[in-house]
Amino acid sequence: MCRLLAYLGQPIPLEDLIFAPEHSLVTQSYQPKELEVALLNADGFGLGWHHPDDRTVDPFVYRNVLPIWNDANLPHLCRYIKARSFVSNIRSATPGLPLDFSNCQPFRHGQLLFVHNGYIDQFRQTLYRPMRDLIGDAAYQNIYGLTDSEHIFALITHLMEANPQLLLHHALEKAIDMIQSLANDYGVRVSGVIIMGDGQKLVAARFDNQAKAPSFYMLRQPEGIILASEPLFDGNWQPVAQAHSLAVSMSDLTPHIYGFSHVS
Amino acid sequence: MCRLLAYLGQPIPLEDLIFAPEHSLVTQSYQPKELEVALLNADGFGLGWHHPDDRTVDPFVYRNVLPIWNDANLPHLCRYIKARSFVSNIRSATPGLPLDFSNCQPFRHGQLLFVHNGYIDQFRQTLYRPMRDLIGDAAYQNIYGLTDSEHIFALITHLMEANPQLLLHHALEKAIDMIQSLANDYGVRVSGVIIMGDGQKLVAARFDNQAKAPSFYMLRQPEGIILASEPLFDGNWQPVAQAHSLAVSMSDLTPHIYGFSHVS
Amino acid sequence: MCRLLAYLGQPIPLEDLIFAPEHSLVTQSYQPKELEVALLNADGFGLGWHHPDDRTVDPFVYRNVLPIWNDANLPHLCRYIKARSFVSNIRSATPGLPLDFSNCQPFRHGQLLFVHNGYIDQFRQTLYRPMRDLIGDAAYQNIYGLTDSEHIFALITHLMEANPQLLLHHALEKAIDMIQSLANDYGVRVSGVIIMGDGQKLVAARFDNQAKAPSFYMLRQPEGIILASEPLFDGNWQPVAQAHSLAVSMSDLTPHIYGFSHVS
Amino acid sequence: MCRLLAYLGQPIPLEDLIFAPEHSLVTQSYQPKELEVALLNADGFGLGWHHPDDRTVDPFVYRNVLPIWNDANLPHLCRYIKARSFVSNIRSATPGLPLDFSNCQPFRHGQLLFVHNGYIDQFRQTLYRPMRDLIGDAAYQNIYGLTDSEHIFALITHLMEANPQLLLHHALEKAIDMIQSLANDYGVRVSGVIIMGDGQKLVAARFDNQAKAPSFYMLRQPEGIILASEPLFDGNWQPVAQAHSLAVSMSDLTPHIYGFSHVS
Repeated sequence: MCRLLAYLGQPIPLEDLIFAPEHSLVTQSYQPKELEVALLNADGFGLGWHHPDDRTVDPFVYRNVLPIWNDANLPHLCRYIKARSFVSNIRSATPGLPLDFSNCQPFRHGQLLFVHNGYIDQFRQTLYRPMRDLIGDAAYQNIYGLTDSEHIFALITHLMEANPQLLLHHALEKAIDMIQSLANDYGVRVSGVIIMGDGQKLVAARFDNQAKAPSFYMLRQPEGIILASEPLFDGNWQPVAQAHSLAVSMSDLTPHIYGFSHVS
Repeated sequence: MCRLLAYLGQPIPLEDLIFAPEHSLVTQSYQPKELEVALLNADGFGLGWHHPDDRTVDPFVYRNVLPIWNDANLPHLCRYIKARSFVSNIRSATPGLPLDFSNCQPFRHGQLLFVHNGYIDQFRQTLYRPMRDLIGDAAYQNIYGLTDSEHIFALITHLMEANPQLLLHHALEKAIDMIQSLANDYGVRVSGVIIMGDGQKLVAARFDNQAKAPSFYMLRQPEGIILASEPLFDGNWQPVAQAHSLAVSMSDLTPHIYGFSHVS
Repeated sequence: MCRLLAYLGQPIPLEDLIFAPEHSLVTQSYQPKELEVALLNADGFGLGWHHPDDRTVDPFVYRNVLPIWNDANLPHLCRYIKARSFVSNIRSATPGLPLDFSNCQPFRHGQLLFVHNGYIDQFRQTLYRPMRDLIGDAAYQNIYGLTDSEHIFALITHLMEANPQLLLHHALEKAIDMIQSLANDYGVRVSGVIIMGDGQKLVAARFDNQAKAPSFYMLRQPEGIILASEPLFDGNWQPVAQAHSLAVSMSDLTPHIYGFSHVS
Repeated sequence: MCRLLAYLGQPIPLEDLIFAPEHSLVTQSYQPKELEVALLNADGFGLGWHHPDDRTVDPFVYRNVLPIWNDANLPHLCRYIKARSFVSNIRSATPGLPLDFSNCQPFRHGQLLFVHNGYIDQFRQTLYRPMRDLIGDAAYQNIYGLTDSEHIFALITHLMEANPQLLLHHALEKAIDMIQSLANDYGVRVSGVIIMGDGQKLVAARFDNQAKAPSFYMLRQPEGIILASEPLFDGNWQPVAQAHSLAVSMSDLTPHIYGFSHVS
C-alpha cells in the first residue's frame, strides 16, 4: 500500500502540496491516518510533473529509495519546481519486493505519468506472467521493475497503443476490468487506486474485486483540483466512490465521475 | 532519540537479537513502544561487534543510512556474523541533522564501541563548541560527524587518554558529570542512555539532568546479558534506575549497578 | 562489461582477495587493465560466499550500488568474513540500465551463486522476451531485475530443474548454446564469462559468438584456485581459452577444461 | 581533487553545461583530462543555482553521493532547471574522508554558494583545529561536514560577518592569505581553485603555496561566462593565472583579474 497525491490547475510550487499542508505528503509518510494494510509509507517515493509553461516537452520524474522525510534535496526542489499537472507516490513496499529505484513510482510513458496504490494479491505467483503475456513488445520493453503497479501501467499503455482512439479513462477501465477478471480466475484480490496525468487531464479509478478499496478523495479549489489518498488539510474533500473512475481536464477543472460498467 | 541494544556472553548469531525476537530491533524501528520524543527509528542504524574467537583483532562496524528494515544485505550478514560482544543503534535523527553515514552509530575507538540514545538540547547552539574545546587533539581528530553523541564519546576517550588508569565506567560517569554541569550552566536538558563495549565488558549509564531519562532494561540469561531500550520478548527484564551506571564483564556476566555520586 | 573474481579452497578472509592484492578487485574497479568496452567498473558490486565450516546453510550475498571503493562497511566485512567458496562481480552497467540493487550480482538460487561479465547485444529488443518464454515458472518468478545476466542464470536454473540429473557445467554449456543459437537468429553478438559456485565446486565458461571473449584467467595455488577477469598479482596465471568451460571441485582443486562441443 | 564548473549570464537550462558538451561535467567525472592527483571524480557531486527570474529567493542546492553519471534523476532535473548563476562540483574524495552527503559541495550561506577544488595537506592533523578556532560562532555552527573545503568557506563567511563592508573577492583573497600563512607555519601545501556566486556575480581564485595550482579556465560568450577546471568544448578558453583572483558581475559579464598582493 502507498499514499497518492495529484494536482491539476494553475501552476503552483510543489512545496504547497508536499511540505506545507498540515497533513502533507511528508506527514502521511510517517503518520498516515487511513492506511489499513501497513503502518508507514517509508520505502521510497516519487514525483512526476509537467512543465508549467511549455506543453511540448516530456514530463519530469524524480524518485528516491529513501523515506521522503530524509531526502535533503527535496525541500530545495519543491521550492524551485512549479507544475500545472503533478502526480506523486510515497511507497509502502509489498514485503519481499526490493527497494529498487525502478520500483519507485511514478512510471512514465511519453506524456503519461502513472501512480498506483494497492496490490494484486500474490502477484508473482498469479497474474505476473499472464499479464506480461497480454502485453505487446513496446510496452513490454518499457517495464524496468517487477511491481504489480508497473505491470498494470504496461497493460494500459499496451491497450492505448493497440487502439490509439481509446480515451484514457476507457483504457484505464478496460485494464482494470481485464485484471479483475484474471484475478477472479485465480481467486485473488485486486485492490487499488490509480491516477494518471498527461498534462492536460487527470484520470483516476478506485476499485476492489472483493472488499473495500483504499481511501481516495478529491478537493475542488478555484485554482485547481487535488486528488489524494488522505485529505491534506481541513476542507470539503469528497470521497470518490468505489468502482468508479474520474476524469478532469485542464480546460474546465470539472471532475466527471463514471461508474464502472462491467466491474464489481 | 534512538533505540539501543547490546549483548555480552557466549557467541550467538546476530539474527537472534536483530530479527528473531517478537519485539526485535527491526520491529522497534517501525513500531517502538516506549519512544517518547519521536515516532520511529528509521534514520539509519548500525551494528558493532567483537570477533567471537579472536580477541586480538579490532572490532567490526556496519552502518547504513536506510531504515533497518530496508537493508537487503542485513539478513545475510546477521545469519553469518557471530559475536560475543555486540552493540547496536537504530537512529531517530534530531530534526535538522543530516542523514550522513558518519552520523550513524556505533562509533569506534580502538577496541571500544559506543552507542547513545538521547540528546543535548540545542546542542549546536550550546555545548557543541565548549565540548570540542575540552577535547585533546587525538580525540578531536577522531570526530567525523556532528552529533552530540559523537562528541560525548570523544570526551570519554579524551578522559581515558588523559588518564589511562581510569576505569571505563568511571570515565563514563565523569564525562556525564562534566556534560551535565555544562548543560546546567546553559540551562539546557541533557538526557540519554549510553552503552560501551570493549569486548571484555559492557558499561552503560542512564541519565537526565531535568526529567525522566529514556527507558533502559537488562535481562540476565545463562549464556549472556542483554541491554536494551525496550524488552525484546517476554521475560524478567529489569529497568536500570536513572542516574545509575552499570558494568558487566565477560568473566562472570554479573551486572554491577552504581549510583552516580555527583550527578542529579 | 564487468570484472569477475572467484575462489575455491581453504577458508581465507575476503580481504586477501578484495583489498590486499596489488591489482585487487578494488583497483580493478577504478583502473582495470583489460576492460575493452568500458573504462570503469563503478556501477555497484557484489560478493557471495559459502560458510567456511557449515555446509548445510545457504550461501550469503552482499551487494551495493556504490562503487566498491566507496563502501565504508566493506573493509570491516572483508576482515571478518572467511570463505571456502566465493564469487564476486564489480559492475560496469550497460548504458540505459538502472543502477538498481536487484541488478547487482551475484544472483543466488539455493546453494548456487552466479556471476557474469559480458552482454547480449540489444538484449531488451532481441533475446529478452524469447529467453523469458523459454523459462519455467519457478525460475521465472525468481527474476528480480532486468539484466541479460539474470536471464542467463534463470535459463540455467530452469534447465537444472527440468533435468535434475544434469551436471552443472553441462547446464552451463547447454544454456550458452541455446543463447548463442538465439543470438545468431537475431544476428546479435553474445559475449561473456560466467562463473558459478555451489560451495563444493566452481564451474565457469568463456564464450563469444562473433569475436573475442572477455579476458579470463585461473591461478592454481596449494591452498586454493582463483578465477579472475584480470590477474590480481604477478604469478602463473593461465588464460582460459575461448569456447571452453572449466570445472574444479573442492575435493582435489584440479581444474578440468572442456571445449564446447556445439558452440563456435 | 575535484572538477569545478560555474556559469553567469542569461538563464540557460543546466543540461547545456552538465550533459550536452563534448567534455561535459559528466564526462569529466569518468574521464578527466587535466586531473593530476586522482584518476576520477566519482565520489559524489553537487549543483547550486540561483532562480532565473526571482532574485529574492534563496539559491537551490542539489547533492548526491553517487557518481554523477549514475544519478537517474539528474537528466530530468537538468532539463527542467534554468539558472542565471550556477556552480557545481564533482568530487574526488581525499582518501580517508567519508562519502557523506554533508561533504558534497556546493556549500551555501545565505545567497552565497561555494565550490572548491584542491586540498590542504594533512588537513585534520594540521590546519583543522587552528582554522576552527579562527571562526566565530555563527559560521562555526554552519559547518556540517569535515572537509577542508567547508572550513575554508566558513572562514570566508566569518570574515564577511566580521566586516560586512568587505567585498566578496577581498574576503576570498584574505581567507586564502590566512590559510597559506597557517600552512606555511605547518610546512604543508595548500592548493586549489575556489568559485563563489551570490547570484549577481562570480568570484574565483587559483592558488598554491608550493607548486602548480590545479587547472582553471574561463570562456566569455555573448550570453554568459563559463568558469571550469577543464574546457567543455573547443573554444577560446583562457587559463586563469596562478595567484590571481577573478570577479565578474551580471551587469557587464566582463571578468576582472587581480594578482594576489600578499600571496606567493
